[in-house]
Amino acid sequence: MSTIQQLYVGIDGGGSKCKAIITNKNKTILGEGISGGANPFHNVERAKQSIINATNLALHDAGLPLETIHELIAGVGLAGVNLPRYYKIMNAWDTPFKEYYLATDLHIACLGAHEKNDGSLMITGTGSCGYASANGKTLVVGGHGFPQGDMCSGAWFGLKAVESVLRAEDGLITSTMLTKSLFSLVGCKNANELVESLAGQGATCYARFATPVFEAANANDPIALAIIKEGCDYFTLVFNKLMALKPSRFSLIGGIAEQLKPWLPNEVTIKIQDVKNPPEVGAIVMAIDSSSRA
Amino acid sequence: MSTIQQLYVGIDGGGSKCKAIITNKNKTILGEGISGGANPFHNVERAKQSIINATNLALHDAGLPLETIHELIAGVGLAGVNLPRYYKIMNAWDTPFKEYYLATDLHIACLGAHEKNDGSLMITGTGSCGYASANGKTLVVGGHGFPQGDMCSGAWFGLKAVESVLRAEDGLITSTMLTKSLFSLVGCKNANELVESLAGQGATCYARFATPVFEAANANDPIALAIIKEGCDYFTLVFNKLMALKPSRFSLIGGIAEQLKPWLPNEVTIKIQDVKNPPEVGAIVMAIDSSSRA
Repeated sequence: MSTIQQLYVGIDGGGSKCKAIITNKNKTILGEGISGGANPFHNVERAKQSIINATNLALHDAGLPLETIHELIAGVGLAGVNLPRYYKIMNAWDTPFKEYYLATDLHIACLGAHEKNDGSLMITGTGSCGYASANGKTLVVGGHGFPQGDMCSGAWFGLKAVESVLRAEDGLITSTMLTKSLFSLVGCKNANELVESLAGQGATCYARFATPVFEAANANDPIALAIIKEGCDYFTLVFNKLMALKPSRFSLIGGIAEQLKPWLPNEVTIKIQDVKNPPEVGAIVMAIDSSSRA
Repeated sequence: MSTIQQLYVGIDGGGSKCKAIITNKNKTILGEGISGGANPFHNVERAKQSIINATNLALHDAGLPLETIHELIAGVGLAGVNLPRYYKIMNAWDTPFKEYYLATDLHIACLGAHEKNDGSLMITGTGSCGYASANGKTLVVGGHGFPQGDMCSGAWFGLKAVESVLRAEDGLITSTMLTKSLFSLVGCKNANELVESLAGQGATCYARFATPVFEAANANDPIALAIIKEGCDYFTLVFNKLMALKPSRFSLIGGIAEQLKPWLPNEVTIKIQDVKNPPEVGAIVMAIDSSSRA
């Protein structure tokens, strides 16, 4: 089949969800869809399926037949493809799209936030990563995945929350409000049941426990306050690295960005500028640019 | 088939390896075998297979036919079965043994180390856990698995080493000797390759990186020294909890016990007493006692 006008799909795939928008060449959004996690470092097949699911939902939302997927030019930005191995795997994918352009979630987020590939940002969602692009140089700071990297991310706050609850239950540190919050969230009664619920789980599962940390900190829980201080200290180190490149703008995005913002030091918050567009619009920009150059 | 004298198998199953010994009722060791990890919290089917593999190797070492497994009375101590869910799963196992008695690795270690179920110990292998039994009371401190628990274990030291190398590679902390050690151990050239090698890996994989931490600390690497201090501070908290029960003896066992010992504070080291027997002999004691009471 053929379409009268060329359509595009912009994909922003993170650890917990994948967002797709369908637009025309004027970037007018015709439909959108959200599916599950699409970080290939977590699970390659799930990432591919989430991209297709989100696209199908967006096509349905636009009132278009699902076969239209074969006519779409896709711009896809994914967490995890900063690792060369996962970039290669996802780039070699025989996709259902007419054309397919792949980049990191950082790159499309920058294109979206600043309307150009000059600027900087920190993503704090399920994972975390800093990115700056300026004067022909590109810098990526952090990332590295769960559990060894992604400090100050949702999964990291969640892991610290679980660690603290277990130490408190062992009587090794003072009690914390986090115990009640986490037990209630999991629907469990003790430390053993909390640990059992975590067997074999990854970043997305731990990221559920980030919000209780901010809630407990707002109620002055000292354990939660200490976790947030450790996260913000790390954030500030990354921020200073990014600023050394003298990027034109800095934005903070991702699922826990709004919760985190009030806790960051003033030197960081005065530099935060609103994004011009969300990452999925950056993915559309990349698709249009790449296709016209192809 | 039947055997002239009753034989026993004692199993000590941890995160990285499983040890089996075959004895007669006088606890004379006739053969021994070592197989892979047997912590059901990591992988239930692998745990069962490792127990059978280690038993087969021990039977072979004793010059006995493998069919003898059906005549053995088994005492099995496993990491991970402190969690009720995994105790139930492993206890419901339709084993090839004639009789099968299951307990935690902590319980058989205590029976081995102190020749009675009165005493205390800290296991620091792939995982870590504290245990005390005295005056009719039993206390378990720590454990909780990877990555949220098991501080001061091999896997925890390994995770801290990886975290530090990644932060050093990002230029966020000073450089560390650990970078060269870990890259060389994995056979990789940069942080991305190190992270790729860790995708989907668990405690056993991270525990490989514990020894480099002690080597770097011995060469005065400040990052390694800070990691060891954090681990020892936690160890001391657990130790003090155990001592509050006033157990008759205290022993330190597990794969990294000897490396850790020189770094522990004096208040701990003066209390460490040699084990009378290893955990697998404790498992034999349990098998003989339980069978005679059955």
